[in-house]
Amino acid sequence: MSASLLRHAIHIASILGLYLSGAMLIPAMLDLYYGHTDWQVFATAAFVTNGLSATTFMATRAGPPPFSKKFGFLLVNVLWSTFALIGALPLWMSSLDLDFAQALFESVSAITTTGSTVIVGLDDAPPGVLMWRSLICWLGGVGIVVLGLFIIPYLRVGGMSFFKMESSDTNEKPFARLTTFSRAFFTVYVGITLLCAIGYNLTGMNRFDAINHAMSTVATGGFSTHDASFAYFGSIPLLWTATFFMTLCSLPFSILIVFVARGRLDALRDPQIFVFLAYLTVFALSAAIYHRLTNGVEFHIALAHSFFNFSSILSTAGYMSEDYQLWGPFVVMAAFIATFMGGCSGSTAGGIKAYRFIVLFNAIHSGLRKLIYPAAVYPIRYGRNSLDADTLRAILLFFVTCILLWILGSLTMAALGYDFLTSVSAVITCLSNVGPGLGNIVGPAGNFSSLKDPELYLLSLMMMMGRLEVLTVLVILTPVFWKQ
Amino acid sequence: MSASLLRHAIHIASILGLYLSGAMLIPAMLDLYYGHTDWQVFATAAFVTNGLSATTFMATRAGPPPFSKKFGFLLVNVLWSTFALIGALPLWMSSLDLDFAQALFESVSAITTTGSTVIVGLDDAPPGVLMWRSLICWLGGVGIVVLGLFIIPYLRVGGMSFFKMESSDTNEKPFARLTTFSRAFFTVYVGITLLCAIGYNLTGMNRFDAINHAMSTVATGGFSTHDASFAYFGSIPLLWTATFFMTLCSLPFSILIVFVARGRLDALRDPQIFVFLAYLTVFALSAAIYHRLTNGVEFHIALAHSFFNFSSILSTAGYMSEDYQLWGPFVVMAAFIATFMGGCSGSTAGGIKAYRFIVLFNAIHSGLRKLIYPAAVYPIRYGRNSLDADTLRAILLFFVTCILLWILGSLTMAALGYDFLTSVSAVITCLSNVGPGLGNIVGPAGNFSSLKDPELYLLSLMMMMGRLEVLTVLVILTPVFWKQ
Repeated sequence: MSASLLRHAIHIASILGLYLSGAMLIPAMLDLYYGHTDWQVFATAAFVTNGLSATTFMATRAGPPPFSKKFGFLLVNVLWSTFALIGALPLWMSSLDLDFAQALFESVSAITTTGSTVIVGLDDAPPGVLMWRSLICWLGGVGIVVLGLFIIPYLRVGGMSFFKMESSDTNEKPFARLTTFSRAFFTVYVGITLLCAIGYNLTGMNRFDAINHAMSTVATGGFSTHDASFAYFGSIPLLWTATFFMTLCSLPFSILIVFVARGRLDALRDPQIFVFLAYLTVFALSAAIYHRLTNGVEFHIALAHSFFNFSSILSTAGYMSEDYQLWGPFVVMAAFIATFMGGCSGSTAGGIKAYRFIVLFNAIHSGLRKLIYPAAVYPIRYGRNSLDADTLRAILLFFVTCILLWILGSLTMAALGYDFLTSVSAVITCLSNVGPGLGNIVGPAGNFSSLKDPELYLLSLMMMMGRLEVLTVLVILTPVFWKQ
Repeated sequence: MSASLLRHAIHIASILGLYLSGAMLIPAMLDLYYGHTDWQVFATAAFVTNGLSATTFMATRAGPPPFSKKFGFLLVNVLWSTFALIGALPLWMSSLDLDFAQALFESVSAITTTGSTVIVGLDDAPPGVLMWRSLICWLGGVGIVVLGLFIIPYLRVGGMSFFKMESSDTNEKPFARLTTFSRAFFTVYVGITLLCAIGYNLTGMNRFDAINHAMSTVATGGFSTHDASFAYFGSIPLLWTATFFMTLCSLPFSILIVFVARGRLDALRDPQIFVFLAYLTVFALSAAIYHRLTNGVEFHIALAHSFFNFSSILSTAGYMSEDYQLWGPFVVMAAFIATFMGGCSGSTAGGIKAYRFIVLFNAIHSGLRKLIYPAAVYPIRYGRNSLDADTLRAILLFFVTCILLWILGSLTMAALGYDFLTSVSAVITCLSNVGPGLGNIVGPAGNFSSLKDPELYLLSLMMMMGRLEVLTVLVILTPVFWKQ
């Protein structure tokens, strides 16, 4: 039974493989254009991927897939694993000399829009490789929005069903039909990418850098084409451009679509938007004031760097403009906490996310009142709606599971020999799909290149779990999933 | 209305004051016996406390108190605040030259059975002061068991109502009547203290040290009479004696009572006991093996130190036998994680506690199964009972609140200038009532003496919140509590 489900899932994944083999021709042509021999790598990878995918497609052909929740979970896991493996293939074969664990880590980092890198020497890397990273990151962003808007609510993971409920409750159904919605979403996604690229080009990047950074900005990935990330450019206007686009892409895409398509702003009443923008402002402003007072930096400089780096962490993009760890212990702690938080649901951002914090705080408040008046009923509210008990429990469980996973992951990192700060921050930055951690190794000024294979596999798993809302991955690891 | 409640609560607290003024005569006599001039401090403090308490008692006289949940919450907070202030008085007046914040911190640390200290030079401190610390710590242990067994379940805080339910469900009611239970509890508590003191005396301590350490062991406090804590004695048998008694006092006292009074062991089927002993063994054993492999220490030495220090952290006593941070990063992380965990409910131990972890894991497991089969009902079990939805929600909320408080506290510590490891570990060690944190300042080889007043007040608040199951304190901070 489960074998048959797996067969169907692999069949669908092979279609993804066919598309990705086509996508590999873009970096191949780019390398050819720039006269780099790595074009052969992409051509070979495309050929191999296409061949394997087509064979698998034929071999696993069967009737229409049996749609069920079980199949949904399996399909999501198979699709993302396939995406990770195919994404890793050209990186593994490329002239960068990455071993398999490194290539897989880089690929997972891209498709989960994390943006952590094991590559040192990005400035001299072949343009095809840089474009491939940006491309699968950008496609990963598409994947996560589609997943978040259509599949995760159906699977009722981590309280996301709430958003499904909401759109069907109010009589709006902005783009109810899948095709209409898909077209509108791609228009917005491509449109923002282009606007962002133009913005980057105008404020200090060349065209190649602008396109690459725009793709990983919209996906809130955070891959750069330079080892120094945004510090390379040394442009304050560029930082504000990036801040604007990173923040924009942490907002729910459905709301951007309604705004663009109908010019209506009333969807902005979704409380997660206000809360997300509020905590971004509090973090960035207090860090800027602290930086000003502690290190005597000019306030407008401190403000630009602070807003850039905190919107980078909170949007889970993960670029950096300087090593903010040097600003002082308050900023290190604030960055650590921000790494847990994340953006809005329905966006490309990861982390625990603003709507869950709203629900958690409301639940604590209602719980305290219930202690005084046990007989009274205090519904947990989200905006104008009240949550049912199942959704609340799902959100509470999601939070608890994330914290426990983070603790287990940190213990494993420490057992592998890493210091406290590196361990706790590397795991949470991967679980939240942010990018940089803290400390000298994985901090904003470092990268993941010195990590060995076991920890790269561990962190790749963390990135995947974080991206797929944790429980989607955990569920296929339970024995009951494979029974019958 | 609330003013009248407060008046009643203060009235009851004044009775506690009268008892405590009497207790101050013990250190006074001890100092007199040893010929130390500090006896005058205790005599004066006793006189002042007695006078103030008696005056308050007369001034707040009124009819019988209006028992309600509101009054229960208020009373618990007023009682523990009074205890903290009276406990601080002789420390503040003593020859140790502590300022008020330091004296309060030391007192709160004692009555919450945390065991963190701001005193340097314990080896030469007046015996009266040492005895006073041990005494209020010991009494704090009594307070917390009484609170945990009678008051908190009635207030339904943090899922502890579950234990009330359990004892009334099964037809056992081991010591249903308050007086019978109280007598049995004091017999066990005093009995274990005496046995522990004898054990310490036989395995390397002099009588004065043995009595003081026994009092703070049974309360899982962790105060020592030497700056070097158990490292001072350098006795391996002593470490095992302490390990035995710390572990014993992390088990539910009701079970110890049934065992002693009726010789029945079947109460040991309470799953939290097995789980607590299991994670203690896993932590201690893996740290010992790691210590053996990494640093080449003889295994029986590593085992003694590892069991001692991990039972010290998990029982939330907080003694130390050497700076285990030097064993390696795995042990630092393990100690950090163990600081959250704590012992069993109904004991003197703090932390999140074993029964909550059992429930959390069962809830995650049931939540995962529910994702696959949404229509099926999976009751969350604890032992042979299943939890109602309210209790489960209370336990989930308790966990979430602890984590959020820990994050907020850590951010405040970092804003006050402390490094990452000091900040996160100082807050959790206080919130869990353990004792030592990590790093150079508050770590096992350091103490809290270099901390300034703002952070001492913050950490005192954290200790109080942790001891009173967090929500008991938070609830009186909500506006709704003071309405009407």
